[in-house]
Amino acid sequence: MSIRIGLIGAGRMGKVFANTLAFTVTEVDLVAVADPSEQALTEVSSRFGIKKAYKDYRELLDSKEVDAVVITTPTGTHAEVIMAAAAASKNIFSEKPISQAVKPCDDAIQAVKQAGVKLQMGFMRRFDPPYTVAKQKILEGAIGTPVMFKAISRDPGCPNLEFAKRVNSGGLVIDMGVHDFDLARWLMGSEITRVYTEGTCLAFPELKGVGDIDNAVINLRFASEAVGNIDTSRNAVYGYDIRTEVLGTSGSLWIGYLQQTPMLILNKQGVTHDVVPFFMERFGIAYAEEVRAFVKSILNNTDPSPTGADARAATVAGIAATLSLDEQRPVLISEIK
Amino acid sequence: MSIRIGLIGAGRMGKVFANTLAFTVTEVDLVAVADPSEQALTEVSSRFGIKKAYKDYRELLDSKEVDAVVITTPTGTHAEVIMAAAAASKNIFSEKPISQAVKPCDDAIQAVKQAGVKLQMGFMRRFDPPYTVAKQKILEGAIGTPVMFKAISRDPGCPNLEFAKRVNSGGLVIDMGVHDFDLARWLMGSEITRVYTEGTCLAFPELKGVGDIDNAVINLRFASEAVGNIDTSRNAVYGYDIRTEVLGTSGSLWIGYLQQTPMLILNKQGVTHDVVPFFMERFGIAYAEEVRAFVKSILNNTDPSPTGADARAATVAGIAATLSLDEQRPVLISEIK
Amino acid sequence: MSIRIGLIGAGRMGKVFANTLAFTVTEVDLVAVADPSEQALTEVSSRFGIKKAYKDYRELLDSKEVDAVVITTPTGTHAEVIMAAAAASKNIFSEKPISQAVKPCDDAIQAVKQAGVKLQMGFMRRFDPPYTVAKQKILEGAIGTPVMFKAISRDPGCPNLEFAKRVNSGGLVIDMGVHDFDLARWLMGSEITRVYTEGTCLAFPELKGVGDIDNAVINLRFASEAVGNIDTSRNAVYGYDIRTEVLGTSGSLWIGYLQQTPMLILNKQGVTHDVVPFFMERFGIAYAEEVRAFVKSILNNTDPSPTGADARAATVAGIAATLSLDEQRPVLISEIK
Amino acid sequence: MSIRIGLIGAGRMGKVFANTLAFTVTEVDLVAVADPSEQALTEVSSRFGIKKAYKDYRELLDSKEVDAVVITTPTGTHAEVIMAAAAASKNIFSEKPISQAVKPCDDAIQAVKQAGVKLQMGFMRRFDPPYTVAKQKILEGAIGTPVMFKAISRDPGCPNLEFAKRVNSGGLVIDMGVHDFDLARWLMGSEITRVYTEGTCLAFPELKGVGDIDNAVINLRFASEAVGNIDTSRNAVYGYDIRTEVLGTSGSLWIGYLQQTPMLILNKQGVTHDVVPFFMERFGIAYAEEVRAFVKSILNNTDPSPTGADARAATVAGIAATLSLDEQRPVLISEIK
Repeated sequence: MSIRIGLIGAGRMGKVFANTLAFTVTEVDLVAVADPSEQALTEVSSRFGIKKAYKDYRELLDSKEVDAVVITTPTGTHAEVIMAAAAASKNIFSEKPISQAVKPCDDAIQAVKQAGVKLQMGFMRRFDPPYTVAKQKILEGAIGTPVMFKAISRDPGCPNLEFAKRVNSGGLVIDMGVHDFDLARWLMGSEITRVYTEGTCLAFPELKGVGDIDNAVINLRFASEAVGNIDTSRNAVYGYDIRTEVLGTSGSLWIGYLQQTPMLILNKQGVTHDVVPFFMERFGIAYAEEVRAFVKSILNNTDPSPTGADARAATVAGIAATLSLDEQRPVLISEIK
Repeated sequence: MSIRIGLIGAGRMGKVFANTLAFTVTEVDLVAVADPSEQALTEVSSRFGIKKAYKDYRELLDSKEVDAVVITTPTGTHAEVIMAAAAASKNIFSEKPISQAVKPCDDAIQAVKQAGVKLQMGFMRRFDPPYTVAKQKILEGAIGTPVMFKAISRDPGCPNLEFAKRVNSGGLVIDMGVHDFDLARWLMGSEITRVYTEGTCLAFPELKGVGDIDNAVINLRFASEAVGNIDTSRNAVYGYDIRTEVLGTSGSLWIGYLQQTPMLILNKQGVTHDVVPFFMERFGIAYAEEVRAFVKSILNNTDPSPTGADARAATVAGIAATLSLDEQRPVLISEIK
Repeated sequence: MSIRIGLIGAGRMGKVFANTLAFTVTEVDLVAVADPSEQALTEVSSRFGIKKAYKDYRELLDSKEVDAVVITTPTGTHAEVIMAAAAASKNIFSEKPISQAVKPCDDAIQAVKQAGVKLQMGFMRRFDPPYTVAKQKILEGAIGTPVMFKAISRDPGCPNLEFAKRVNSGGLVIDMGVHDFDLARWLMGSEITRVYTEGTCLAFPELKGVGDIDNAVINLRFASEAVGNIDTSRNAVYGYDIRTEVLGTSGSLWIGYLQQTPMLILNKQGVTHDVVPFFMERFGIAYAEEVRAFVKSILNNTDPSPTGADARAATVAGIAATLSLDEQRPVLISEIK
Repeated sequence: MSIRIGLIGAGRMGKVFANTLAFTVTEVDLVAVADPSEQALTEVSSRFGIKKAYKDYRELLDSKEVDAVVITTPTGTHAEVIMAAAAASKNIFSEKPISQAVKPCDDAIQAVKQAGVKLQMGFMRRFDPPYTVAKQKILEGAIGTPVMFKAISRDPGCPNLEFAKRVNSGGLVIDMGVHDFDLARWLMGSEITRVYTEGTCLAFPELKGVGDIDNAVINLRFASEAVGNIDTSRNAVYGYDIRTEVLGTSGSLWIGYLQQTPMLILNKQGVTHDVVPFFMERFGIAYAEEVRAFVKSILNNTDPSPTGADARAATVAGIAATLSLDEQRPVLISEIK
């Protein structure tokens, strides 16, 4: 049986998923695409040989020839589209987050539950091979009890100022941190209970004008009493730097890498290697693997993961960490309703 | 325009290429497959949705619906199939080598020339990103004049004894070394002129019984007067170890890596990482890239590379290095006719 | 001219300095030693050929044959001995800190100032070659403006419980963190203004009984508006892990290393290397270099560094970070008087 | 008991040993120095506080106040000085080699034997911690049976032309290779039986004029039937590169490193670290450790190692490898008498 997929959203990430759905994940047929932009629709449907193209995603949801949808619309619309897809009884894979606010998360999760459909959220790092192996090692007890979570999450440059606004990206702490909040909960096997953020804007002063910052360090406390820290930055001019550590009572796991091309040049300046430039070079495989997992959960009728509740928890942590930044005080996760 | 490909050979490497042709290289249609084994034919044609399946590759070559062929038959048959494909006016991509003897190489090259078709040989390492970048760096003068070539080429275990026989694999020096002889010529930009091999059989004494060895070091001399050494082994029990260096007058390039999963485990035993297990994990991308290059050379009507002459040169170096092993003396490449 | 040194304190660190003074720093004569323990006195004076041995350090200070003292007494006595040495007009090198309280720091600094003698504090990391080079690179502008300070400071095991008590070690945050607070101020070229600590006790529950913790993450804010984080742990069972990063607007510097013996073992378990076991293996050279710098400051009559004020600032940061841990709130450095 | 040492030779290496003997190895007294150069004598004796200084080393050997000698004279004189020291019944530590010819090696070894004194040769790499650990690991069976020896031995630049002459340095293969021939025999636990050298002169053509080359690869065969290769170069412009591998039937050991300062700089050019500049930065500790071992062998009256026979064997391998270069054929070690 082949699963018939409709893609909702044909922008940058939409194209990535279209490519994955068309060429990499062989158990699916990419049969429909929806996007308000005529140009994006034409480009994606012709490039990937998609038969049906809709300007209104609701029409795609009405189609009987679509079994499941992949949602790659702008962040602000995820909750609405998820709810509509649930109402149309489609299984749902959605790019993270559900929303940057709590209420839409709750509404979407409720709608999915009522419809009895599957919802998998696109925290692709969980499907990146080293993270997958690390999670397995932790479960096997390779490092004892996890006691500290450490994360580096750095972008190589400043986003455009419109995107940087909190109303769009959620601000640095949410925009960059959401993946780390998810990794933290998943790898530590425990909920975040308190956060404290120190942030600053020293590299790109223009971000101040739109209410954003460019660097932050976020202390974490977990229900297990473990502690943690995430550092995030927009000025890793050397490249895209995503690394994570879990320190346990009997060992530690370090996940991630910097070098893109396995070639060293040795000359009078020393030994030099390059750095991963950006996220597709780093997580390309994971974007395919998460779709494979979604397809498998449909085929085998198992629960998909990460769930809507996982996405909600990462959002709540991000809201709390941003509140901590604003109010210069530790914020309990339980404060965020 | 889409190029219609016929795959000749549906064994282990045939499946790899079928997957690449079906799912990764999007400018081609995999329309036919040939293999004497009914079972292999059925498996490959159904798994990759190939319309035509032939037990005799000559029938595939007769088909007007095939523009080009990919040859992944057993090594001993490459020359014959290349000649037949040339006679049928098909463009040809063939797994390396043309042959482990000189005469069939010459015959195949001649047949391709007369037919005026394209022939690209599957030295996939040339398409592995770090090797590609290294070649470019050398051409740009990043290390000055190349003066030394170094290669490590090690397998993680002993092949089956039947394959190890010289009549099949060519013996360790040819079987493992052929890729390095090709890299040596290509990266150094100069022909190999003399070789000297020291070999031994200490790890898998059973190889002695079939006339093979398990470890060798091969000194090289180039027309440019540069020197080099290849070490090759079947007992790299830690993993698949392929690394290459070009030392020049003003710097050096090191190509390759050992670590498969970007995860470190730190415990009382120290810091440990895993190793690339085998060749598909290491060169998977390169197998797709070489096919892309072949397709591009057809679409753009440019000369494919590496050529039949490149394959012949690597074979000649392997024959010379094996003769050196047998006669315990340096052998000039010009001795091999 | 050779400087005549008196060593005050013949315990573990006293022996390290005795060895350095006797054999490594050739511009000094180690002429006297003081320690209340008869056994320590005898051992050190005979092993390092020191002519005068005193049970009471005040007698050593009375000697006209001592130009300068090196203080390696228990932490709680540093301030008192510094004041006595200043009163005796000796130049002073003292192990850090001056004290774990502010008042004794102020008193000692005042006494040194009044006596017009030199005081250098033993923050040896500033003399470790990679840290020295990093500081130089930052001053040269190699990474632009520093915006984030990151430190890992982990011990391979639990200290004895008596030492772990706050009254002795100051607790984890002060005991382990003091070097990082010093590095933070020095490398960032800016004062710490706010700290927030999350701490826990999960690896060695016995530490709870004496009021200590085993893991902490400490967020930092600097006067320059830069941010930072120090993580510190007692359960780095893999070894002694001291690494530091300064991220700037145009690059980043990473200082430190894990591997002790430059040897890799490759087998079926993967690739493994060992880890620095403890602090003398890591900072042995720095202990000699800081004494050399002290001697040079006397010979050239220049101001020694790090100063008493530096030691006071590190202590104040440690007190603030500990208060933050206790009160679960960010603490301004200016709160600590 | 303190051993009274006389240093014969106050040139570059003489100063290194003088420093070691004066300040690092505490069980000895450096009581005398000999050198034909008045200036060197004065400089060394005053800088290291040596009481007796002789222009003629024979006078030093006559002194009853010297128990043992350290010989750091020019290579061409080692055999003669060793014989004279043996005749004077002094224990002897000599820089390698005994001689670049076989006869003087035999004569010196014979003289030492007749006199019943100790002779330790300065192959300091055997005392470098990673090599020491590697040897131990091999003896413990950590890699099974050694089957391949690999060595990189590269200098960062061209020596002066006078030194490069064969009559002085022995030529590249002997000058650079002698340490590797020694390591090969020691780590593999087997004698070298055959060598084959490919050499060239492409980086520093001026070396041709004095009969030398700048790059060589040397294949090795061992009595155990193991194989090996040494590459040596004078144009490692990136730094001093000494690395060694022993591949065994169940694992591999890699010894050595490139990075001098444990600091990485990350910027738009990528990630860069420096390289060990030259041999004292790499093997400084080993120069002290080998003297400590010599002193210990005297104090405990045990046999020193490496012996004169070890030095002879390394010289013979070097002569054979040079002959192979000249005659372009494999040379049996047994050919060299």
